[in-house]
Amino acid sequence: MPVYADPIDGLAVPVDLLQAWTARLVESLGTPADIAADVAEILVASDRRGIASHGTARLPSYVALIEAGVMDPAARPSEDAGRPALRRFDGRNGWGHHASRVAVDAAIASAGDLGTATSIVHNSNHYGIAGWYALRAAHHGMIGISLSNTSPLVAPTRARQPLIGTNPIAIAAPAGRFGAFCLDMATSTIPRGRIEVAARRGELLPVGWAIDAEGRPATTPEAALAGALHPLGGEEGTGGHKGYGLALAVDILTGVLGGATFGPNIIGLFSTEAASDLGQAFVVIDPAAIGTREAFEARLEGYLDQLVTAPTVPGAPGRVLIHGEPEAEAERRADERGVVIDAVHARSLVELGARLGVAAPFGTGPDRPSE
Amino acid sequence: MPVYADPIDGLAVPVDLLQAWTARLVESLGTPADIAADVAEILVASDRRGIASHGTARLPSYVALIEAGVMDPAARPSEDAGRPALRRFDGRNGWGHHASRVAVDAAIASAGDLGTATSIVHNSNHYGIAGWYALRAAHHGMIGISLSNTSPLVAPTRARQPLIGTNPIAIAAPAGRFGAFCLDMATSTIPRGRIEVAARRGELLPVGWAIDAEGRPATTPEAALAGALHPLGGEEGTGGHKGYGLALAVDILTGVLGGATFGPNIIGLFSTEAASDLGQAFVVIDPAAIGTREAFEARLEGYLDQLVTAPTVPGAPGRVLIHGEPEAEAERRADERGVVIDAVHARSLVELGARLGVAAPFGTGPDRPSE
Repeated sequence: MPVYADPIDGLAVPVDLLQAWTARLVESLGTPADIAADVAEILVASDRRGIASHGTARLPSYVALIEAGVMDPAARPSEDAGRPALRRFDGRNGWGHHASRVAVDAAIASAGDLGTATSIVHNSNHYGIAGWYALRAAHHGMIGISLSNTSPLVAPTRARQPLIGTNPIAIAAPAGRFGAFCLDMATSTIPRGRIEVAARRGELLPVGWAIDAEGRPATTPEAALAGALHPLGGEEGTGGHKGYGLALAVDILTGVLGGATFGPNIIGLFSTEAASDLGQAFVVIDPAAIGTREAFEARLEGYLDQLVTAPTVPGAPGRVLIHGEPEAEAERRADERGVVIDAVHARSLVELGARLGVAAPFGTGPDRPSE
Repeated sequence: MPVYADPIDGLAVPVDLLQAWTARLVESLGTPADIAADVAEILVASDRRGIASHGTARLPSYVALIEAGVMDPAARPSEDAGRPALRRFDGRNGWGHHASRVAVDAAIASAGDLGTATSIVHNSNHYGIAGWYALRAAHHGMIGISLSNTSPLVAPTRARQPLIGTNPIAIAAPAGRFGAFCLDMATSTIPRGRIEVAARRGELLPVGWAIDAEGRPATTPEAALAGALHPLGGEEGTGGHKGYGLALAVDILTGVLGGATFGPNIIGLFSTEAASDLGQAFVVIDPAAIGTREAFEARLEGYLDQLVTAPTVPGAPGRVLIHGEPEAEAERRADERGVVIDAVHARSLVELGARLGVAAPFGTGPDRPSE
């Protein structure tokens, strides 16, 4: 989940404009306003946090799913099974962002009573950045865990083909002056987008990132794109079986537990051939159940202080970082100066808005209306 | 968590003999019989599963803690805080194995009512293999997660010194003809014991395993032992910050949440300078809350079938494996032929037994009484 540097050909769009336009665009697809507001908030949160790959740049792909009739823009999730601390929601093939927001909020409310609670979503779609839902709990003073299964892109250790998703794990906790600890990671060594960047830059790949179509280490981006990603850890000798196990565990806790699809049976990313039927899981833990939230947060802040002041290795680009710090810094920058989106991204939104009759609040090229 | 090959100089000890003797030895230290039975079962389970580093070979180290007065052999854990689904136990500085067995059993019982439950242990000691507690839930048809913080051996990304433990994550689930899925992993690339093996064999180390005392990549075992382990993923370019984040998340969910010690403040492994005050966490999820356990297990079995029959990479040493399979195979072998322990291990137990007046049921060297 790399934070992207602001593009040099970028256009700065004020956060509130981008979010309001995204909501209007989503509403124009037949989505009720409250659901559209969730989708817009979560997509723009990704852009603000510097995760351009998971934000509004994906709007054209979501629209394609709806226009192909394989995703229902108006669906409301419903609770369909469970006990007090473990509930399942049927996403009813609607927006994954909204179903997941409803699910994590239910877990937050129950954790406040019971100490911990888990919500599972099945029959869902892509939910954007995993970290948003974990941070939702952290903003309530609780620990949040957010998991999703995804389309198969990773080859399990010893396997030649992609059989399992990059299945993200996000964990967040409130952390005093650090804001929040927020680990938000794919369980592959690197995301597929990083290979695409290497292809554009003409880079060679290190061992441990990917295999080619024959199952050998991929040394070029082209070979890797025809093959599969390595799980976190890379090859077996450097612990790749652990990343494979984590990816599989995420699938067990989401698709297998929730009765959604899983592993090699998940269709391709944003494929319009059928509904995605993804699974998500949200675990929320309330430190107030065994002490006070303030004391927990103070302990964590003190711990992180010990880490960021530690001596660094020779040539380190800076001090030890806490997970979520670069994203929080990008967010502060975006809230001050606007979200900086690159030319390809901007053009795709302008075209989408024009086609759907919801003009984007910014232009592209020499006739930019906003300039 | 490597499965060890049976040593060539090994002595096969019947499981029941080894376990009964371990229990008697632990009782001789002033431990009540029921607690000693837990300790013996869990230590011998490690030996049976081929994890020689975490089993009865550690008995002399536990005895040293008790004899130094920094661990209480007779302590009974007590529940000291919580809500229905999240409870905390005070290990009262007793055996970590027993406190953790009590804690995971409480979570299993509550998960049966509520759908999921979590138990935290503080003021605890080393608890052996993380996987045992996760498997305890799997044997009840549930998903189990077991976490512990440990002594600092890992350098966070960019840091020069060990500041964080190899904090294990174990996740288990019942899996039909596969028995159980059981991922049981340190969050470092390799455990410290693997470096010690490399030292005995005179091997050089690959990049991604460890750094030396100056923070540079360690190429020799000696340099690594004076430095720190890399988190899973190795260097930053191959995702080491993810392993660092997982290790930190384990610490947040155990030591920080439970009010135990954490990170750089944990004393050295089996140091007799003070009480360890480790933290453990156990999360149990009951699939019956949102369906039937049988249907969940059948889905997981079908998934694993898809993985183990997939085409493999050139030169693969066998088919795709499921986490826990090598350990389950070692367990079957041990239950048939006995646990095979190496000469150094056997001698240490014979000496310990002689010193404590509880003679080991096997000998070493030319005057082995059992031969």
